Amino acid sequence: MYSILLSGGSGKRLWPLSNDARSKQFLKVLENSQGQRCSMVQRVWEQLQSVNMDKKTIIATSKSQVDMINSQLGKRVDLVVEPERRDTFPAIALAAVYLYSVKGVSLNEVISVFPVDPYVEDRFFEKVKQLEQVIYSSNADLALVGVKPTFPSEKYGYIVPRNSNSDVDYIEVSHFKEKPNQEQAFRLIEKKALWNCGVFAFKLNYIISMLEEKGLPLSYDALIQKYDQLEKISFDYAVVENAKKVVTIMYSGFWKDLGTWNTLSEEMSTNLIGNGIISDSTSNTHLINELGIPIAAMGLDNILIAASPDGILVTNKDESPKVKDLITPFDNRPMFEERRWGWYRVLDHTKFSIDNEVLTKRIGVKAGRNLSYQKHYKRSEVWTIIRGEGEFALNGEIHLVKKGDVLVIPVESEHGIKALTDLEFIEVQSGSEVIEEDIVRIQMSWDKVKQICT
Amino acid sequence: MYSILLSGGSGKRLWPLSNDARSKQFLKVLENSQGQRCSMVQRVWEQLQSVNMDKKTIIATSKSQVDMINSQLGKRVDLVVEPERRDTFPAIALAAVYLYSVKGVSLNEVISVFPVDPYVEDRFFEKVKQLEQVIYSSNADLALVGVKPTFPSEKYGYIVPRNSNSDVDYIEVSHFKEKPNQEQAFRLIEKKALWNCGVFAFKLNYIISMLEEKGLPLSYDALIQKYDQLEKISFDYAVVENAKKVVTIMYSGFWKDLGTWNTLSEEMSTNLIGNGIISDSTSNTHLINELGIPIAAMGLDNILIAASPDGILVTNKDESPKVKDLITPFDNRPMFEERRWGWYRVLDHTKFSIDNEVLTKRIGVKAGRNLSYQKHYKRSEVWTIIRGEGEFALNGEIHLVKKGDVLVIPVESEHGIKALTDLEFIEVQSGSEVIEEDIVRIQMSWDKVKQICT
Repeated sequence: MYSILLSGGSGKRLWPLSNDARSKQFLKVLENSQGQRCSMVQRVWEQLQSVNMDKKTIIATSKSQVDMINSQLGKRVDLVVEPERRDTFPAIALAAVYLYSVKGVSLNEVISVFPVDPYVEDRFFEKVKQLEQVIYSSNADLALVGVKPTFPSEKYGYIVPRNSNSDVDYIEVSHFKEKPNQEQAFRLIEKKALWNCGVFAFKLNYIISMLEEKGLPLSYDALIQKYDQLEKISFDYAVVENAKKVVTIMYSGFWKDLGTWNTLSEEMSTNLIGNGIISDSTSNTHLINELGIPIAAMGLDNILIAASPDGILVTNKDESPKVKDLITPFDNRPMFEERRWGWYRVLDHTKFSIDNEVLTKRIGVKAGRNLSYQKHYKRSEVWTIIRGEGEFALNGEIHLVKKGDVLVIPVESEHGIKALTDLEFIEVQSGSEVIEEDIVRIQMSWDKVKQICT
Repeated sequence: MYSILLSGGSGKRLWPLSNDARSKQFLKVLENSQGQRCSMVQRVWEQLQSVNMDKKTIIATSKSQVDMINSQLGKRVDLVVEPERRDTFPAIALAAVYLYSVKGVSLNEVISVFPVDPYVEDRFFEKVKQLEQVIYSSNADLALVGVKPTFPSEKYGYIVPRNSNSDVDYIEVSHFKEKPNQEQAFRLIEKKALWNCGVFAFKLNYIISMLEEKGLPLSYDALIQKYDQLEKISFDYAVVENAKKVVTIMYSGFWKDLGTWNTLSEEMSTNLIGNGIISDSTSNTHLINELGIPIAAMGLDNILIAASPDGILVTNKDESPKVKDLITPFDNRPMFEERRWGWYRVLDHTKFSIDNEVLTKRIGVKAGRNLSYQKHYKRSEVWTIIRGEGEFALNGEIHLVKKGDVLVIPVESEHGIKALTDLEFIEVQSGSEVIEEDIVRIQMSWDKVKQICT
């Protein structure tokens, strides 16, 4: 069995720590088996390793997450990168075609798919592994893992069984019920319905033949080219609801969706992360501070405080799922990003007038990494090196630079920098517009930059 | 009658918006009679104007507050500036000697003294004015305004009357009682005791002769020179408790000490100041945000959120008086200061190693003002001008500079800048130590700087 780990969704449900560049699965607020702080994606990957599933798992993700995944899991992981966001059916289809045409996986092989954000015990993945046998023995189109409900939740989807046949190791599915009210949920549980946790399996052939019928290309490169023509539709709508025979198996252990602050904080390894202090008179309160300035919490109960350069949230935990709606008026420029080459943090951003906007950043480049050789049309930049040494390329010449040096980069000048040791600088951008999109990348590879420049 | 307005105390009770450089009386969270946002000192000054007391009121304050007072009240106010902090008796003595030796006020004149932080109705100051007549008619050493208690507070000091004589317009004081328990407070109120709000009056002669007895100089300049030898003692201990005859008059209107977040927030003109959003599900909550990033408050009740570059406080209002104790572990460098010449804000501060500390500031200089001509022994600076035009002096030469220019200032270089228009720059300081104290001021006056430089 091969597996597809879906690492999608950026979302604002964990604002201000998640933003368009940084999804919730990368926040280091959990704890791994060694008691070290880790993110959701790191925790899931460690669990996949512990049940020997990691070698045959590929990660379906989007461009904006590639740097973070490589940074958190290393380069060893097998990534399928969507050219653009188009919902779960296109993402799973692309991953399936990758397995088929690039990895040469047999059409008879079972493929399991699961999301990155549930918080489960390791044995959950033993259940996922059982889906392989269930697909073969049931001859179903789809086999799901259903979670045994612990209370009549109104937030989840339910998998409703047919009258079960106790001779087999799976349960036939009658239909699905999304977000019932509490009364309905109670009755569903009486009928032995299970929570749908978004984990399912199918034979590779089931999806490939579906794509063939739709006239879509079955080679990875060709499908990438046509990706923008795929319908934006979820796998649930496109596949699950139309499948002829669906079966499920029951997982009755711990399972939780870590999609919102209230559920996530319950699994956090500590009440305080970052610079801050919580008074003795405070209870059931979590404080996560990614800012350089301290936060003091006094006399609070059941409160979540999360602070990042994007903003600060102070919320009653019970209301925290609504944060996404509350913050829609806020400006959305990410104030902190981790990238392949390092990271940056916005220190200050001011628009003085129509032709004078100024953005000040602190930028860190890891030893051996480089910023691409690039230019900007609407802004000049001043870099003051505050740490380390590097090679700086400017308009065709390479200069050795170090702490204390000031680099002035006029509009349209070609420039780039490679860190020889861990390098940091303060960047002052100023011009008529200072946006990430005003960038022309001339060359990414530093070896080639050095060829151009000498 | 002349008056002394005591504008002392920096304190941390309103952290993070008050710090050593910015006292609570300068926070613009109240509303003046025109409905505009104003600070405590601005509100009190407007009230003094409305009862015609401002012309004969001097402000006793400390060096660190001079810039803020001039910035908020203008240059018209008469300031007596303590050379250093030494408690209320020395401060009042210095102001009295100033009135006597500089202003030539008669020894028979009545002087009233009041603090800057009570929140009162205008007619409170009519009571203060009555103290003049009361001093003459009672022949008392001291006459106080006492506030009619509205509840048996354990936080205040009480003025306990003798059996009152209904023929006169004042009440003789028997003794004082500091912070009674509730039972005691209840009995004190039964005996018609009043809250001591720190407002009193005396004949100038009473203080001057006291200083004479102690052998202290009676000329302002001479007392300034000896100021560091004055005992650090409060006026209450040194004078009030030893006075032979003390009388009081009763004020029965609105009076409140705005010393802590819970009392201050009750008088705030709005629930939200700065960049933020408060959900409909939030009640009795105040949010004051001086940061550039937004704050979202959801599902809170009776909470105060205050954020400045110094830190962020999230507290139950009832516990807010304890903030001073909670935050003692935090680093105390002020992150924002207003000065005579403009303001600065710390954007970033990092100590990489024993010989590499970096501080990034955004600095604003008002048109026509200048930074002193100065040098530093332990740091170099890089200034990137992001707005406006100015004259920049460096090692004996003057240069015209403007937006976009980058000014590199090595260690020990003499430098200064005058803003021709409102000027802003990003300053990156780096060196073995970056502290405000590493500064040698060569010349403050820009005219003289220009003479030195040409």
